Amino acid sequence: MVDLLVWTTAFASLTNLANPPNAPLLAAEVAEAIETAAEAPLVLSGVLISLIVVYLAAKLVGELCIRVNLPPVLGELTAGVIVGISALNLLIFPDGQQGFHSLILDLLQVTAGLESQSVQSVAGSISEVISVLSELGVIILLFEIGLESDLKELIRVGPQAAIVAVVGVAVPFALGTTGLITIFGVAVVPAIFAGAALTATSIGITAKVLAEIGQLSSKEGQIIIGAAVLDDILGIIILAVVASLAKTGEIRISNILYLIVSASVFLIGTILVGRLLSPYFVALVEGMQTRGQLLLASLIFAFTLAYIGAAIHLEAILGAFAAGLVLAETEKRKELEEQIAPIADMLVPIFFVVVGAKTDVSVLNPINPANREGLIIALFLVVVAVLGKLVTGATISGEESVNRWAIGIGMIPRGEVGLVFAGVGAATGILSNSLNAAIIVMVILTTFLAPPLLRIVFQLASDSENSENLESLPKSE
Amino acid sequence: MVDLLVWTTAFASLTNLANPPNAPLLAAEVAEAIETAAEAPLVLSGVLISLIVVYLAAKLVGELCIRVNLPPVLGELTAGVIVGISALNLLIFPDGQQGFHSLILDLLQVTAGLESQSVQSVAGSISEVISVLSELGVIILLFEIGLESDLKELIRVGPQAAIVAVVGVAVPFALGTTGLITIFGVAVVPAIFAGAALTATSIGITAKVLAEIGQLSSKEGQIIIGAAVLDDILGIIILAVVASLAKTGEIRISNILYLIVSASVFLIGTILVGRLLSPYFVALVEGMQTRGQLLLASLIFAFTLAYIGAAIHLEAILGAFAAGLVLAETEKRKELEEQIAPIADMLVPIFFVVVGAKTDVSVLNPINPANREGLIIALFLVVVAVLGKLVTGATISGEESVNRWAIGIGMIPRGEVGLVFAGVGAATGILSNSLNAAIIVMVILTTFLAPPLLRIVFQLASDSENSENLESLPKSE
Repeated sequence: MVDLLVWTTAFASLTNLANPPNAPLLAAEVAEAIETAAEAPLVLSGVLISLIVVYLAAKLVGELCIRVNLPPVLGELTAGVIVGISALNLLIFPDGQQGFHSLILDLLQVTAGLESQSVQSVAGSISEVISVLSELGVIILLFEIGLESDLKELIRVGPQAAIVAVVGVAVPFALGTTGLITIFGVAVVPAIFAGAALTATSIGITAKVLAEIGQLSSKEGQIIIGAAVLDDILGIIILAVVASLAKTGEIRISNILYLIVSASVFLIGTILVGRLLSPYFVALVEGMQTRGQLLLASLIFAFTLAYIGAAIHLEAILGAFAAGLVLAETEKRKELEEQIAPIADMLVPIFFVVVGAKTDVSVLNPINPANREGLIIALFLVVVAVLGKLVTGATISGEESVNRWAIGIGMIPRGEVGLVFAGVGAATGILSNSLNAAIIVMVILTTFLAPPLLRIVFQLASDSENSENLESLPKSE
Repeated sequence: MVDLLVWTTAFASLTNLANPPNAPLLAAEVAEAIETAAEAPLVLSGVLISLIVVYLAAKLVGELCIRVNLPPVLGELTAGVIVGISALNLLIFPDGQQGFHSLILDLLQVTAGLESQSVQSVAGSISEVISVLSELGVIILLFEIGLESDLKELIRVGPQAAIVAVVGVAVPFALGTTGLITIFGVAVVPAIFAGAALTATSIGITAKVLAEIGQLSSKEGQIIIGAAVLDDILGIIILAVVASLAKTGEIRISNILYLIVSASVFLIGTILVGRLLSPYFVALVEGMQTRGQLLLASLIFAFTLAYIGAAIHLEAILGAFAAGLVLAETEKRKELEEQIAPIADMLVPIFFVVVGAKTDVSVLNPINPANREGLIIALFLVVVAVLGKLVTGATISGEESVNRWAIGIGMIPRGEVGLVFAGVGAATGILSNSLNAAIIVMVILTTFLAPPLLRIVFQLASDSENSENLESLPKSE
C-alpha cells in the first residue's frame, strides 16, 4: 500500500525532476496544487527524526544514569537539555526571536528535499506535533500513576496529604516573598510573583521516580501523590490570584471560588460517578469482540476526563489521573496496566525530553557576568524552595513508620510550573531579568536535585530497616 | 505537576476574566505574549476530542461489523466515512475551498474558549497532528505486519509474488486504458492516467484483514504481502512514468532506473545488513536496564528505516516493514509482538478512520445527475479493477494447496493510492470531472468489497477442507 501523503511527495519531487524550463502550462497549477500537500510528508519525516533523537538521547543518558544509581527520569531530562535549545539544538522548538532553527531542519533540507521557503511552516508543524505527543505522554503517565494508586489509601492519607500540600505552598511563598523584599530589596508585586513560582510541585517527576523505585503505592508515595495533586489545584488558584493582582491591583474572589468549586466537584464527582459506572464499563468491555477493546474503551474514558479537566480550566492531567484511579478499582486493573505500559514507554520519554529541551540552562553559566546577580538570588530561592518543602515532612504526626524526609524531598521538584511563571513574568515585564533568571535556575536545580535525593532517602531507610531486622532477628535471614 | 501549556491557558483565561476595560497598559503585552501559547492547549483539547471521536466510531461500527461477520477494519473505514467529510464532519480536515469547518471546532469554541480569529490556525494544527498520528499508525501497522511475517517464507514465495505483482499491475492497466479509449472515447493521456490508478494494491487493508482472520503467515498470506510490497514499488514507478508523460510528453528513463535501483538496494540492503547486525541488537537490548528498552530500541530501528524509506522517495511504510522483517528473525520477536500490540491498538484505528474520513462518498449518489456519467465509467473501472487482480490467482501454478481466489481477492483493494491519482488528476485538469469521480468510486468499492470477500473465500476453503477431512477421516473427530 502506498500512503497518500508520501505518494504526493513522490509525485511532487518527480514532477519537479521531470519539469524542464519550457514545460506546458499545467506545471504551475500542479506545483501550486501539491505545494501544501508536499509539506505533509516532510512533517512526518521531521517527526520521525525527532522521535529517533528523543529515544536515542533518553536511552543513552538514562542508561548512564541507572549505572551510577541515579533515576532514569533524570537522564531523560538531561538528555532533553543536551539535544534541546541549550546545547545541540537538535529538536525543533520556536526560540522566540528568529523563528525556528535546528539541525533536524538542516537534515531535512539536505536529505528530504525541504525547500527553504517552507522551512518555517514545516518546522512549526513538527514542533506542534512533538509538543502534542509530549502532552499525550504526560496524560498517559498520569493515567498510569492513577491506575497504580490506591484510592482507599489516598482517601485514608487525605488529611495528611492536605496538610503537606498547604504547608508546602504557604512556607516557600511566605519565606520567598518576604526574603526577596527584605534581603534583596525587590518591589512587592515582583516579589509576590517570584514567591508564587516557588509553590507548585511537579507531580510528574516525583511520581516517575517513585514508580522507578517501586515506592508509588507505599504510604509515603500515596501521601506525596495526594499532596502533589492538591498542590496542582492550589497552584492554579495562586496563579489566578497573582495574575489578577499583577494586572489590576486587586483580587477577584469570584474567580478563586470558581476554581475551588470546579476542582472539588470535578475530582470528587468523576471518582464517585466513575465508581458507580465502572461495573457497566467492565461488562461493556467484556461484551466487545474486536481487538484492543479494553485499551480503547479505557483511553476513551481517560481522554474524555482529560478534555473536561482542560475545558473547565483545570488540567488535562488531573482528568487522566482521576480516570486511572477509577479504573484501578475494577477487576481489569492488572490487564490494563500491562497494556498501558508499552504505550507509556513510547510516549512518556517524549514528555521528559521535551521539558529538558525547552529549558535554557545558559542562565546557569557563572562566567557570564549578566547571570551573576540572578545566580545569587537563585541561591536564596533554591534554599527556600528546598527548606519550604522539607518542613512538610515534619507535619506528619502520630505515625512512626512514615519516612518524613521522603515526603519533604518528594515535594521539592518544581518542573515546568516554575518555568511558566518565569515565562509569563518575562513577557509582562513584571520580573527583572535577574529575578527571571533566578526562577529558572531554581526550577532547574530543584527538578534535577530531587530525583537522586529521593532515591537515596528511600535506600537509606530500607538499609536501616534491613539492619534493624537483622539485629532483632539475626537467625531469620 | 502542572504542565506548561495548560498553565498558560489557565493564565490566559484568568487574565481575561480579571481584566476590566481600564486595565493597566501591561494587559496588551500580556495578551500578545500569551496569544500563541494559549492556542497550544486548544490544539491538545482538539486532538483529545478527535481521538475520542475516532475511537468511539471505530469501536461502535467495528463491533457491529464483527457481529454480522464482516472484518472490523471495514468498520473502521466506514466509521471514518460517517464521522468524516462525507457525513457528520466531526473530524477536522481541510475541505479545500472554505478552509476548516467541523463540529469539533464548534465544540472547542463553546467549551474550551477557542476564539473565532484563531479557529483556522488551531484547526490546521489539529488536522496536522491527527494526520501524523494516522501516519504513525500505518508505520506501526506495517512494522507489526513485518514482525508477523516470515522472511524465509517470503523469499520462498518471492518468484510467485513477483509474477502476481506484475500481472496484477499490467492487466488492469492495459484493460483499463484501452477500454477507456475504445469504449468511452477518452483521450490517450487521461486514459493512461486512469489506467495507472487501477494498478497499485493497498497492502494495509489486505494485511489487516489477513491478520484479523489469522491468515497472515499462511502461504497465501505471504504471497499477497510479498506481491503487495512489490506492487507498492511498481506503483511508485508508474506514478513517475505517468507524471512525466502527462507533463512533458516523454518518459525519463533515468528517474525510473533510479527508483528501481534505490528500491532494490534499500529493501535487500536493509534486510541483509539488518540480519548481520541483529545479534548485536539483541545483546545491546539485553544489556540495557531502563524500562521499555526492547520497545524503544526497536522503535528507533523502525523509525530510522522509515525515515530513510521516505527520504529516498520510496515510502516510510516500506522501511517499517523491512524493520519488522529483520526483528522477526531475532529471539525477541515474541516479546516485541506483545509490546507492539497495544501501541498498534491505539494508533492503527486512527489510520483507517482517517482514510475513511478523508474520502468524499457523495460521488456515489446516483440521484445527483452530475454523478451519473462518472458512475457508468466507474462500473467499468470496478469490473476491470476486480478482474485484473483476480486473474493473478491463475498465475500460481504447480501447487494444489494454494487458494488462488484468496490471492486474487487479496490484491483487489486500491485504498488511498487511487485517491492520490484522483486528487492529482483533478488538480492538474488532466482528468475530466466524471473520470475523476469514476476513479474515486472504483477506489471506494474495491476497498470496501475486498475485506468481506477475502473473509468469505478463506472461510469457504476451510469449510471444504474440514468436510474433506471429515469424509476421509470420519473417525478422527
